[in-house]
Amino acid sequence: MGEPGSYVELDQEGVRRHLAARPALAARLGGAPGDWAVREVSDGNLNSVFLVEGQAGGLCVKQSLPHVRVDPAWKLPLDRAFFEAAYMRAVAPHVGSAAPALLDYEPALFCLVMESLTPHVILRRGLIERAEYPRMASDVGAYVARACFATSGLARRFEAVMDDIALFARNQTLTRITVDLVFTDPYRIAPRNRWTAPLLDTVAADIRGDTALKQAAARMGERFLGRPQALLHGDLHSGSVMVTAEETRIIDGEFALMGPIGFDLGLFVANLLLSLFSQPGHDEAGAATYQAWIAAQIETVWTVFDREFRRLWNAASANAAGDVMPSALLAGEGSRNAMQESWMADIHDDMLGFAGMEMIRRILGFAHVLDLESIGSDDTRAACELQALAFARRLLVERSASGGIGALLRQRAGRLPS
Amino acid sequence: MGEPGSYVELDQEGVRRHLAARPALAARLGGAPGDWAVREVSDGNLNSVFLVEGQAGGLCVKQSLPHVRVDPAWKLPLDRAFFEAAYMRAVAPHVGSAAPALLDYEPALFCLVMESLTPHVILRRGLIERAEYPRMASDVGAYVARACFATSGLARRFEAVMDDIALFARNQTLTRITVDLVFTDPYRIAPRNRWTAPLLDTVAADIRGDTALKQAAARMGERFLGRPQALLHGDLHSGSVMVTAEETRIIDGEFALMGPIGFDLGLFVANLLLSLFSQPGHDEAGAATYQAWIAAQIETVWTVFDREFRRLWNAASANAAGDVMPSALLAGEGSRNAMQESWMADIHDDMLGFAGMEMIRRILGFAHVLDLESIGSDDTRAACELQALAFARRLLVERSASGGIGALLRQRAGRLPS
Repeated sequence: MGEPGSYVELDQEGVRRHLAARPALAARLGGAPGDWAVREVSDGNLNSVFLVEGQAGGLCVKQSLPHVRVDPAWKLPLDRAFFEAAYMRAVAPHVGSAAPALLDYEPALFCLVMESLTPHVILRRGLIERAEYPRMASDVGAYVARACFATSGLARRFEAVMDDIALFARNQTLTRITVDLVFTDPYRIAPRNRWTAPLLDTVAADIRGDTALKQAAARMGERFLGRPQALLHGDLHSGSVMVTAEETRIIDGEFALMGPIGFDLGLFVANLLLSLFSQPGHDEAGAATYQAWIAAQIETVWTVFDREFRRLWNAASANAAGDVMPSALLAGEGSRNAMQESWMADIHDDMLGFAGMEMIRRILGFAHVLDLESIGSDDTRAACELQALAFARRLLVERSASGGIGALLRQRAGRLPS
Repeated sequence: MGEPGSYVELDQEGVRRHLAARPALAARLGGAPGDWAVREVSDGNLNSVFLVEGQAGGLCVKQSLPHVRVDPAWKLPLDRAFFEAAYMRAVAPHVGSAAPALLDYEPALFCLVMESLTPHVILRRGLIERAEYPRMASDVGAYVARACFATSGLARRFEAVMDDIALFARNQTLTRITVDLVFTDPYRIAPRNRWTAPLLDTVAADIRGDTALKQAAARMGERFLGRPQALLHGDLHSGSVMVTAEETRIIDGEFALMGPIGFDLGLFVANLLLSLFSQPGHDEAGAATYQAWIAAQIETVWTVFDREFRRLWNAASANAAGDVMPSALLAGEGSRNAMQESWMADIHDDMLGFAGMEMIRRILGFAHVLDLESIGSDDTRAACELQALAFARRLLVERSASGGIGALLRQRAGRLPS
């Protein structure tokens, strides 16, 4: 997956030399390398990110670091850039402009060069500012449908699916993070857990003692690890989506693995829900209106995903490409429709369960979300978090009798208790 | 997986030299290499097999051939010996004497050397002769429980499971055989299909037109490819089991893959059922008695598997080894028991469905079984096969309302229609 011996950490001048040595990239920037503006914009924990501007255009350079960015003593393997590049290459033919173009990957440096996204902003920040993005929900729903359908056994011979299973089964460092932080730690005493204490101490203890909830969580964990339906982004929260009013781009696929399709949907929906429940904590005026907008977006993510996934399945049935649900066994539209109903119900069920787990871990686990963290008052934040946790519990424990995401949203308690 | 450039097909003298060059193996045989008796006993389609006898003991030598044994023009990749060796090494620590010891694997020659099994006979032949093996059913049930539990995420960290998923995802040539011959061909017009014609022409056409049956088959195919629960043998029919009255040995793991546990159980149970339904075709006198013995063995395979799998799970929970159903989420015996019930019901359901598909493909597909093929009269064989097909259809379509394998066996029509 690269030659670690030749790895060096790129600084601003290193990035400039790296791009100058690659004529196709240099041509995209235009002008002389000395005139390029190189700006470090790293804000995750695991990578260096640079934006480079030339007179003809811009590029984004992302390099894996051998340690947590803010703590050189916490070592990490470098190979996540390899998996991010592999994910981008696998989905690019299917998702159109919803993914930025991968222009170069240098294995020795674990370094990706992508098109620069301007003036896009990170969706999470846009949601905190109560901006509305008319295309976001349908773009993300269609993206998941296209990326997942194309990489599933519905569209491909099993040999191609197993090749991807074998490849992404090596992405174990980041998968371990998900297994521990999403599927285990919030349900036990764990050193990395934190929450709005002491206000949430009781609910955290309740969750650790909630047998039905923990059984549901155990089943979701089994599905995450044991159901390689399609190639997943693996970390599709609102920080992995960049938006303008007209465009949506999905970034940061380094957690990619073969898994259940509902996981990508569930993570995204959960982060919209976390934003929804955070709204009254920022400014009561207008909160309900923006919450209604978010709720509508959540429904749109699902309905567009559902429609696009079925459309792709119907179109693919003509050429009988996949070994899963092969046309030979599902001849006739009626038979295919019956199987589609069953698949979509299953993915919807997974989406709700994974969404519940993502919400819980963002409030009681290690990694929190700015939507809630940026609420200054502990009392206000805790009130929002309690509502989110109650909703998350319903997603996990009551989802099969819930009537689906639309019904759950209509029943939600959406405002601060008065 | 070996160096194909240095591959040579071993003949009897080649086998002698191969063993003579390996002191530990030569010592097991004893005496001078020139005195060893080397006998070719190949009877499968894919490999050469030799039994070697020395004054101190015997060995079995198995080598992959680059072509179908009876047709040098039908080329095959050699790597199945690599996967058989990998399977044997993975399960050996867990299954005791139920697997023959792998003594040597030579990657360049794709050649395994194992302990020789004497006086064991192939179970399928024993069943045709109506021999009773008191330990067979419980030994096979316990073998599947031990091999599958130990290689599942219940017993291991997900990293170890994913390493095996990545490894066995490369066993694609033999998996393709299963996908085509078991999961697809019998349900469509396919050149390799054959059956007792014209007597079964109608039922074969009925099955190709049976929407409910084909939907059930499509679901089982999806589970086979999409549920890497544990490391499977992958071809556990009655020709892969060698028996005496006291001992049972499982051989021929070259189809190994990570898959649903019920697949191994289903294949084995299906082959017992095929023998059961074949009995009246051989000799009416005594057929019913032997059928009752086989039916009891089928129940024993399941009950011993179920008991042993739960025992292993309970024992493992103390040290919390697995990332699937982790102890942190299932603290307390009640919670673990509830999850075990759900797991065992699921595996039982898979077992019935896969058994139905195995029975159908052995009657309407490419590879048939000697139990039925050795019935000389087409009329008699077809009568047995029709009963087996009717039972197989129930396994696939009615299994969830069936009351389980015991109830199905008690309701079976067991004799030739008079």
